[in-house]
Amino acid sequence: DIFPKFATEGIDNGFQQPPPLRTRLICELIGTCLFVFFGAGCAVNSPDLLTVSAAHAIVTMWLVYVLGPVSGGHFNAGATIAFAVDGKMKIIEIIGYLLAQAIGALCAGGLLVWVFGTGTTLGTPGLHPGITVIQGFAIEFLCTTVLSFVIFFTTTYNSQKEAAFPIGLTVFSSFLLGAGRDGAALNPWRWLGPAVFSNTFRSTAWIYGVGPITGFLCGYGIFRLYKLIWNGRAGPYV
Amino acid sequence: DIFPKFATEGIDNGFQQPPPLRTRLICELIGTCLFVFFGAGCAVNSPDLLTVSAAHAIVTMWLVYVLGPVSGGHFNAGATIAFAVDGKMKIIEIIGYLLAQAIGALCAGGLLVWVFGTGTTLGTPGLHPGITVIQGFAIEFLCTTVLSFVIFFTTTYNSQKEAAFPIGLTVFSSFLLGAGRDGAALNPWRWLGPAVFSNTFRSTAWIYGVGPITGFLCGYGIFRLYKLIWNGRAGPYV
Amino acid sequence: DIFPKFATEGIDNGFQQPPPLRTRLICELIGTCLFVFFGAGCAVNSPDLLTVSAAHAIVTMWLVYVLGPVSGGHFNAGATIAFAVDGKMKIIEIIGYLLAQAIGALCAGGLLVWVFGTGTTLGTPGLHPGITVIQGFAIEFLCTTVLSFVIFFTTTYNSQKEAAFPIGLTVFSSFLLGAGRDGAALNPWRWLGPAVFSNTFRSTAWIYGVGPITGFLCGYGIFRLYKLIWNGRAGPYV
Amino acid sequence: DIFPKFATEGIDNGFQQPPPLRTRLICELIGTCLFVFFGAGCAVNSPDLLTVSAAHAIVTMWLVYVLGPVSGGHFNAGATIAFAVDGKMKIIEIIGYLLAQAIGALCAGGLLVWVFGTGTTLGTPGLHPGITVIQGFAIEFLCTTVLSFVIFFTTTYNSQKEAAFPIGLTVFSSFLLGAGRDGAALNPWRWLGPAVFSNTFRSTAWIYGVGPITGFLCGYGIFRLYKLIWNGRAGPYV
Repeated sequence: DIFPKFATEGIDNGFQQPPPLRTRLICELIGTCLFVFFGAGCAVNSPDLLTVSAAHAIVTMWLVYVLGPVSGGHFNAGATIAFAVDGKMKIIEIIGYLLAQAIGALCAGGLLVWVFGTGTTLGTPGLHPGITVIQGFAIEFLCTTVLSFVIFFTTTYNSQKEAAFPIGLTVFSSFLLGAGRDGAALNPWRWLGPAVFSNTFRSTAWIYGVGPITGFLCGYGIFRLYKLIWNGRAGPYV
Repeated sequence: DIFPKFATEGIDNGFQQPPPLRTRLICELIGTCLFVFFGAGCAVNSPDLLTVSAAHAIVTMWLVYVLGPVSGGHFNAGATIAFAVDGKMKIIEIIGYLLAQAIGALCAGGLLVWVFGTGTTLGTPGLHPGITVIQGFAIEFLCTTVLSFVIFFTTTYNSQKEAAFPIGLTVFSSFLLGAGRDGAALNPWRWLGPAVFSNTFRSTAWIYGVGPITGFLCGYGIFRLYKLIWNGRAGPYV
Repeated sequence: DIFPKFATEGIDNGFQQPPPLRTRLICELIGTCLFVFFGAGCAVNSPDLLTVSAAHAIVTMWLVYVLGPVSGGHFNAGATIAFAVDGKMKIIEIIGYLLAQAIGALCAGGLLVWVFGTGTTLGTPGLHPGITVIQGFAIEFLCTTVLSFVIFFTTTYNSQKEAAFPIGLTVFSSFLLGAGRDGAALNPWRWLGPAVFSNTFRSTAWIYGVGPITGFLCGYGIFRLYKLIWNGRAGPYV
Repeated sequence: DIFPKFATEGIDNGFQQPPPLRTRLICELIGTCLFVFFGAGCAVNSPDLLTVSAAHAIVTMWLVYVLGPVSGGHFNAGATIAFAVDGKMKIIEIIGYLLAQAIGALCAGGLLVWVFGTGTTLGTPGLHPGITVIQGFAIEFLCTTVLSFVIFFTTTYNSQKEAAFPIGLTVFSSFLLGAGRDGAALNPWRWLGPAVFSNTFRSTAWIYGVGPITGFLCGYGIFRLYKLIWNGRAGPYV
């Protein structure tokens, strides 16, 4: 119970009160769709590390800036599950967020087929030659641990609009580390959409589901420790 | 009728009242000219996806930051037509904005010839090998739909100066997706200036006119839905 | 007489009043030195258009952010001459600013020799093969015209710290257009330091002096027109 | 004694008072670990100058933005020693900060081995062919002198969150200058972690320790001069 009930900001999104669930679900659907569409789309276009990393960072920044004040800007099963563990989301909201995100990712897969045709993996992340599955999992887990701590920290002490830039930059760092090794999904939906529509299912694909979700839970745990132990019990100055 | 009459900010542009039409038209002319000049100019220099995408995003950011508070920062026939459909522009303003933009694009074409000489397409966007006209249209339509929603959303809830960065980043994402496929104009004028001055007319060039204009109208429609249905009727919390 | 007497901000630089001339001169010397050092240094390292353009844009951003509130952040003979023409600088200030900048540029040349040794042009800008001197001049003139208008506009209606980002982005656009054609100095000092210390004097080098100075004066003229005619006489709404 | 006692901001980090030492030490450990992990990790992945420079700049930006308000965001032995010379840190704090940073750097080395395996230098900086040790030292010394002046200047007149961007951009400029020459550590810990875990010890590695520490002290001296002479004695306007 360490987050305010809804990370929404009435002034920035035109609402006088928290937006209704249906509005937030539509935003999650659209946001997840656009993240997968622009991220995977650039991955189809270019193998260049900086280009692909910039693409994922940039789409994260403007999505969080624009839609973050409405739905909280999860766009990631890991984020939703971590917020759910925090205990402030109703069961209907959790299911709704996850379903909306999954549908959004599948819509992105459809758009990718429309734009890029068949015959490619549509940017489905996969282990590069010479990378072990443990190394791939390590990248997914470590990067999402860091990312989720940054998300929790910045959205707690800043508005969504201010948080959009450090969050996007953390995504940038993570892709610069991992995009040339395991494809760096950091997000189960980033794998789901392209994988389903390009029929690319590899036995190692579980790392893109388990890695981000455990990473987000780990980052949530660290932020909880920060709030409860290091920050909350802050005694007299040492 | 969902936008304030003029998206101008008296404090930021030195005016005590909305700037007169002639001032706004000069700004639209100059802004469109500079967008086409710097965007197409970089496209002549380099085929690199990240470089070309950065060029269009960066010129968008500073143009909207500097001239947005004066004229509203359209620089795009799609934007002007969408604002016109909203019903807050007089017929003289609509015609003036479109004419000023067209003249600006042609000025940019002339500058490009001066700087780059003849013998190139001056960065005229065109379908790359293997891309169908439907795919090219899809890119133009989808990217401008997203871009116009971001423009309407951010300029409604932020100042032009704050909106310059998410808008520029959305342009960045769009070019990273499309620049290596259909040249990614996202703007009829981006095609017009280089095409006229390099005499590059292809039968598929209609996608750079129809795509952005229908995309902007679609994005306007989505934002109108957002304001009227999801936002405007926001009832008691679900 | 269209600018406030000194574009300095007492709150941001630690001064209760405008900083004394000697402080501003030291800042101009250091700032010009660092601009030339980091700009030319990256140009020695890499021929890549995006890399070189980013280098000049980035050093501009943090220099204007840090030193702009102290000295006004000219770092460019063109800027100083344009401000001088505006009539708010004393003759001693004009000479001091230009001398400090020249010394700074020469210091940068010395540092470049220390770091890179002899045997290179130390990043001295020069016309690339196939570029005529008229095209090179056009690039210098057009880009500095735009840059100076952006500088005058943003520093008039924003603080130096806010203006640092659009100014740096305009430098970015200019280099993306010109760096692969005429080396894009946009600043006489950017040419002077490397040229003197690498003994690189070409007959076409006048464009890096005349181009930026005439460009800055042209941009100043356009901004003056903006203030006096379009803005100042802003009558009743059209 | 020219800095406020602790550059911490109660509003931005959730503390009502300066955070306790143990919290700040954990932040220094984590921050140094992440800087080395993401910086060196990208250096293993790519030799591209812009990519490597962006990686170090970006991780600096979000680390200072997120953790700067808690611990002051040193993450660098040079920064801690310069602050120590300023006389506002207790001896226990100085030792604690340096130890925490060293442990963080070693943790990063371990993570790098986990993710990248053995057989590489794990991004340990080293002199490139043809670069003399004096040139390498010059790069480390000059760049950290500039960087530390920017750090002292921006964190004195801005919040840590505002300072994160110009500081990160200065790191960007420094790497664009030096990354292709001496590997550009700018930070003893950036060398330590990868060197220990890849067993890469070269006789010239002292430059990555002596260079940044002397550079930070030099930058501190210049900022002290700025505050005491140019700024502090600011007499009547010249």
